[in-house]
Order: sequence, then C-alpha cells, then structure tokens
Amino acid sequence: MTSNDQTPLQIDGATAVANDGESSLAMHDSEAFKQAFRRHAAGVAAITALAPGGKPVGFTATSLASLAAVPPLATFNMAQVASAYQAMTVGNHVAIHTLGPRTRHLAQKLAADNAVRFDGDHWTPGPYGVPILNGVTSWLLGRVLEVHPVANNAVIIVQIESGSLGPEDDALLYHERAYRSPGSEV
Amino acid sequence: MTSNDQTPLQIDGATAVANDGESSLAMHDSEAFKQAFRRHAAGVAAITALAPGGKPVGFTATSLASLAAVPPLATFNMAQVASAYQAMTVGNHVAIHTLGPRTRHLAQKLAADNAVRFDGDHWTPGPYGVPILNGVTSWLLGRVLEVHPVANNAVIIVQIESGSLGPEDDALLYHERAYRSPGSEV
Repeated sequence: MTSNDQTPLQIDGATAVANDGESSLAMHDSEAFKQAFRRHAAGVAAITALAPGGKPVGFTATSLASLAAVPPLATFNMAQVASAYQAMTVGNHVAIHTLGPRTRHLAQKLAADNAVRFDGDHWTPGPYGVPILNGVTSWLLGRVLEVHPVANNAVIIVQIESGSLGPEDDALLYHERAYRSPGSEV
Repeated sequence: MTSNDQTPLQIDGATAVANDGESSLAMHDSEAFKQAFRRHAAGVAAITALAPGGKPVGFTATSLASLAAVPPLATFNMAQVASAYQAMTVGNHVAIHTLGPRTRHLAQKLAADNAVRFDGDHWTPGPYGVPILNGVTSWLLGRVLEVHPVANNAVIIVQIESGSLGPEDDALLYHERAYRSPGSEV
C-alpha cells in the first residue's frame, strides 16, 4: 500500500474516506462504470471501411477484441452516430489495423473530425477498395458477420479473411487519457 | 525504421522478404489473425458469477470493453466451453473486476484449472452472492443483458448496476505472452 491508497476519492462531489488502508467507494451505475474503466488499459486499433457510395470512413477503437481464432472472429464496439456505422452492414468489408507508437498519428487522425479523417496520404485503397492505413503493425481484412445494436451503440462482429503484417513496433495503449506503450513485465 | 523492420518474418515456414524498408506478408484468415493480435495489447479483467446451483465461476478476460456510458454497458467475449458460460443467462448477475500488477495473482488464479479457481481466501461473496475478488482496483456488478453465441464462442453484454473502487494500482496488461503495466507516454 502506498500513500496514494489513502487519498480520498472525489466522485460527483462525494468524498470516500480511506478505510483500513484501502480507498473504497460504493457507487451506482454510470459513475462506477466511468471510474472503473479509467483503471482499465486498452489497446488502440483503427477501423476503416467504405460507406455506401464509396466514401472512406473509419474511427479509432479501444474495444477491439478477439472472439475466436478458428474461424477468425473479432469484435469491436461503436456509437451508432459514428460516421462509419453506415458501413457496418452484414457482408460489407472492413479493415482492422493494429497501431503502435510510430502510428499514433493515425489514432489521432481517425479520432478527429470525421470530415478530414481521410484527407492526406496516410492511407491507400486496399482489397475491395477498403482504406488500408500506411505503416501499421498489422491489418486484417474481413466481412461484417453480425451487428448488434444496443442503446445508441452497437457490437460489431467481423470474420477475418486475410491480413498483412507491417513494420515492427511496440503496441499502442490508451490509458489515463494518454497514448502509451506497454511497460515492463510485472 | 529500425533494423528490426528489415527482419524477415517467419510464418508457417514461409519467409517474407523485406521490401522498401517494410517487412510485410500477406496472410490468410487464422494465421493473419493470430499474428495481428500478438501486436495488440489488452487490459486484463476478471469476470465472476454464480452458476445455476450457486457454485462460483469465473475467468480471466482480455476482451473487456466499454459499450456505452449511459446506460452503462460493457462487453466481453468467452468460449462456450468455459465453466462460467452456464452463468451467462439473461438477467443473471456478474461481477467485472479490473486488475493491476498487485492483483496479477488473481489473473493467474482465474486462468488456472477451473476446479480450483475459488479455492482460497482471495474472494468474498458480494451482492447477490456474486464472488468479489479481494484487492482489485475496481469491480462492477451488473446483469447479463444479451448473449450472442457465435461459432464456439459468445459475446456477452452486461448492464452495470453498481460498483466500487479498490486500492490504487497501475493497470494490468497482457502483451507478448507476459503481464505488464502500462509504460511511458508516446
């Protein structure tokens, strides 16, 4: 226990008092949720696709996860208001890119105003015209297998068909409101 | 580009030749998938619940992701053969724990033989009897909202109802077959 553990936590104006060397605070729903996820680190990926009409769309995702290796299935979550959501129709192709510190600029580009995310020479049309981001540590091309809308968001399940490894680099994390690389073994 | 970028990659006995300073190799489905996910870092969480009959079940997950903040929704992926899958019925309570380097032993315990995952004093019955792991950086209690079986696996969507913060600690990552803490900003 470090002295940090004794620090009262401020949540919605409430103060939790340190207790037996542990700070703890019971919370309800969304505040608990936000606080807990601040303590969870996430890998950073970029998703791209072509919207109906052929316009490139994409976004930076911290929810990419493996679902199965055989058949190769991945999931990510997104908001239904996202510009890329219109491309998330069953059977449509999407590209999933893993990023590293050297491609942190791509994470920032695809998290910026969606009108300018594909302005520049940071991507190339790949298989089926799907935008492939340059310099990524890997990309995977697949088809949307299932879309599960929930509240204003959606879970997207993609079946991977092919892919390519790019230059070696560390992984890219998002944690405590900053991009980071993985640290030492614990 | 470092000299690492020039190193040919060995995949299934094939060798990719460095090309314009980038190693790259087109791959198909599951091999591409595995290689790409090795370059993606993931936060480590632990999921617990009570199986029908009241037996505690749980597992270590690297797929925990936020789906929405309002209402608070989280997702994780799992195998249908997992001992905890029988507890993943709509309406059943589950606990999601975020882990840190100091609770790395919990990640290992809940990834071990499922017969012994709850042998020991590393947990306490919490709300609705759901096992709460001791010393975690946070836990969230919720109900299973949706279960989407796909192939031999499933996507689980949980609506969070309450939670608690534990002692401060770094986040816990799994990357390159090792538990790590987040490193420096990039």
